[in-house]
Amino acid sequence: MTDWLHKVQYYETDQMQIVHHANYIKWFEESRMHLLDEIDFGYDKMEEAGLLVPVLSVSAEYRSMTRFGETVAISAKIKELTGVKLILSYEITDSETGKLRCTGESKHTFLDAETYRTVSLEKKNKDIYDLFKKMYDAQED
Amino acid sequence: MTDWLHKVQYYETDQMQIVHHANYIKWFEESRMHLLDEIDFGYDKMEEAGLLVPVLSVSAEYRSMTRFGETVAISAKIKELTGVKLILSYEITDSETGKLRCTGESKHTFLDAETYRTVSLEKKNKDIYDLFKKMYDAQED
Amino acid sequence: MTDWLHKVQYYETDQMQIVHHANYIKWFEESRMHLLDEIDFGYDKMEEAGLLVPVLSVSAEYRSMTRFGETVAISAKIKELTGVKLILSYEITDSETGKLRCTGESKHTFLDAETYRTVSLEKKNKDIYDLFKKMYDAQED
Amino acid sequence: MTDWLHKVQYYETDQMQIVHHANYIKWFEESRMHLLDEIDFGYDKMEEAGLLVPVLSVSAEYRSMTRFGETVAISAKIKELTGVKLILSYEITDSETGKLRCTGESKHTFLDAETYRTVSLEKKNKDIYDLFKKMYDAQED
Repeated sequence: MTDWLHKVQYYETDQMQIVHHANYIKWFEESRMHLLDEIDFGYDKMEEAGLLVPVLSVSAEYRSMTRFGETVAISAKIKELTGVKLILSYEITDSETGKLRCTGESKHTFLDAETYRTVSLEKKNKDIYDLFKKMYDAQED
Repeated sequence: MTDWLHKVQYYETDQMQIVHHANYIKWFEESRMHLLDEIDFGYDKMEEAGLLVPVLSVSAEYRSMTRFGETVAISAKIKELTGVKLILSYEITDSETGKLRCTGESKHTFLDAETYRTVSLEKKNKDIYDLFKKMYDAQED
Repeated sequence: MTDWLHKVQYYETDQMQIVHHANYIKWFEESRMHLLDEIDFGYDKMEEAGLLVPVLSVSAEYRSMTRFGETVAISAKIKELTGVKLILSYEITDSETGKLRCTGESKHTFLDAETYRTVSLEKKNKDIYDLFKKMYDAQED
Repeated sequence: MTDWLHKVQYYETDQMQIVHHANYIKWFEESRMHLLDEIDFGYDKMEEAGLLVPVLSVSAEYRSMTRFGETVAISAKIKELTGVKLILSYEITDSETGKLRCTGESKHTFLDAETYRTVSLEKKNKDIYDLFKKMYDAQED
């Protein structure tokens, strides 16, 4: 899996002259979507398949400040996968120096887009589950 | 009609230590929704009535800088209303000093939420049209 | 201390037709700033006093979905206070029904605005420290 | 000059299931910064040179809806350049189909970062002025 690269934009800075901390949560999402694209199952396809993957929780630890003009590399990894739960972990580094900027996690569940009820991904859509599982196992090695 | 008050948030500033210019476009929307609430026909009701009111164009002229900690007053007025077109104009001032911060306009059309086709508000929903018309006429005086 | 009220805006929704999860992190900040205002020591005063209070970490647990048109009440409380560390906890509820929407925490440190070095708030500015301490103690009761 | 490519993010959509209109204003900025990078005079260098280039006005006309998953190409061109004023025009198209999504303009002035007074770019920094002029002339052909 490749990292997602994000060029820091002026509108992402705040008056402390660093990137506002809420943007990192958006960057997690960018890399999450990139991860889905990489396994050839983009979020749009997931919605087409009648699945919603809402965020149950998110956390971020800010390790160093990011500034306008820098480019960050964001890696997303599957930390845990069960039929009904998915935990991803993130690492944001400066793309040039490799300096750690931020780490974090997000926890997700799978919902049926019609009923808004929690479903088992393994039962609802075995193909996607296997793609996730395969990626998870590949990371383990 | 009353103005919409918005307390400037830290996350709305940028590294020039003023409010980033894209936020004013969001503030226009806030006051637009407030205007609909005031005529007792909030945007949620409009969507329930099967109407979408997309933005066709928007413009803003920045007159003076807004800073964190200030509160702005945003007034929205109907500048033009035909069956298929609505133009709103906005004025943003500092709520304490009255100093002009920004003026702008937005142009809208009415779409059928099912077909995504342009509809005449006057024909599709005479009640809402009349509410707008009444507000428009009241402004004229 | 009073809750901070936030009217959910259209631009805060996403295509899942609920508030995008990154906005709650911004709402935490809104209530944090409100808390500082309430003890009569707004963030602007803090910056004037040569102090920066960056976010070291943040976390949010999403309990139920928030939708456009709703108003949320956000309460911020001091969970921990030492000379160099401040932990705040948040609770977001629907202002009408009281239904819990989101809980979370943020961890902060105190920096000297000149040197960007961590400082002890108690040593650097005893007055502000005492204000925080007083609020913290009042919560305990 | 090359176009700036932007992959549409989930957090940029709204409940109408299209990109929220305020984001296009941010995309204009992305392409503006890209244009500066391309002439090897990024905005950070401009700030280092003691220049601020605030936005005086902005306008956008929305021609068709942009959706999550799409990638847009944004071109920025110099429409007008005098010593004290810069007008840029933008064109946003779908990167795959070339379909026009949005056009717009932004007007800027040059400020001395110390005094916040308007300065003539030609007098204050002839090198940058010449870079802009050269780009402007190249477009004319």
